[in-house]
Amino acid sequence: MDLNHSVGNIFDSIPDAFENEIVDCLVQSKQLKIERIVSKGHTSPASGWYNQQLDEWVIVIQGEAVIAFDNGSEVMLKAGDHLSIPAFTKHRVKWTDPMQDTVWIAVHH
Amino acid sequence: MDLNHSVGNIFDSIPDAFENEIVDCLVQSKQLKIERIVSKGHTSPASGWYNQQLDEWVIVIQGEAVIAFDNGSEVMLKAGDHLSIPAFTKHRVKWTDPMQDTVWIAVHH
Repeated sequence: MDLNHSVGNIFDSIPDAFENEIVDCLVQSKQLKIERIVSKGHTSPASGWYNQQLDEWVIVIQGEAVIAFDNGSEVMLKAGDHLSIPAFTKHRVKWTDPMQDTVWIAVHH
Repeated sequence: MDLNHSVGNIFDSIPDAFENEIVDCLVQSKQLKIERIVSKGHTSPASGWYNQQLDEWVIVIQGEAVIAFDNGSEVMLKAGDHLSIPAFTKHRVKWTDPMQDTVWIAVHH
């Protein structure tokens, strides 16, 4: 296979057990960053809120999660669910399923 | 639910039958465009090659597809497989599974 056309899989290299949420950068350019995130009962950040300078688009590929916002609203995300989180929207991952890997794609732009 | 935090699902609104490949824009900004594409036996473009001015990152969420490049190489994509296609890399979707919906996410950046 041409190395310029190498294929990865979003489910690659997930260990059976992992202490911390796994974050892998898939694409980094001037325009954006695309990450693969794997959670298994993890919440984040450890304390407080994410309050990012960039817009974010996330999709849950497998698993289940709850994102909470500082205005009190919460959204449940199941496989296939996607959500835009504008810059400077305080949010956190309140819950992820402890019984399975929750695999996310996050696009920061 | 807060409309600012509205959730879509990547499998939403796929008809049982469709003549042309379905392309929906999920996010459009100055930085990028994120599309949901659904194919079912479709190939594209109708003739010739895609030869895009922007870098592209694609992932197959469900289904199977083959992308061909004008250097003769081909890649088979199954669920979870992702691939970066640099700008001005001539390519086309040579085959998609006619028996199921192939659901893609494409990020143009």
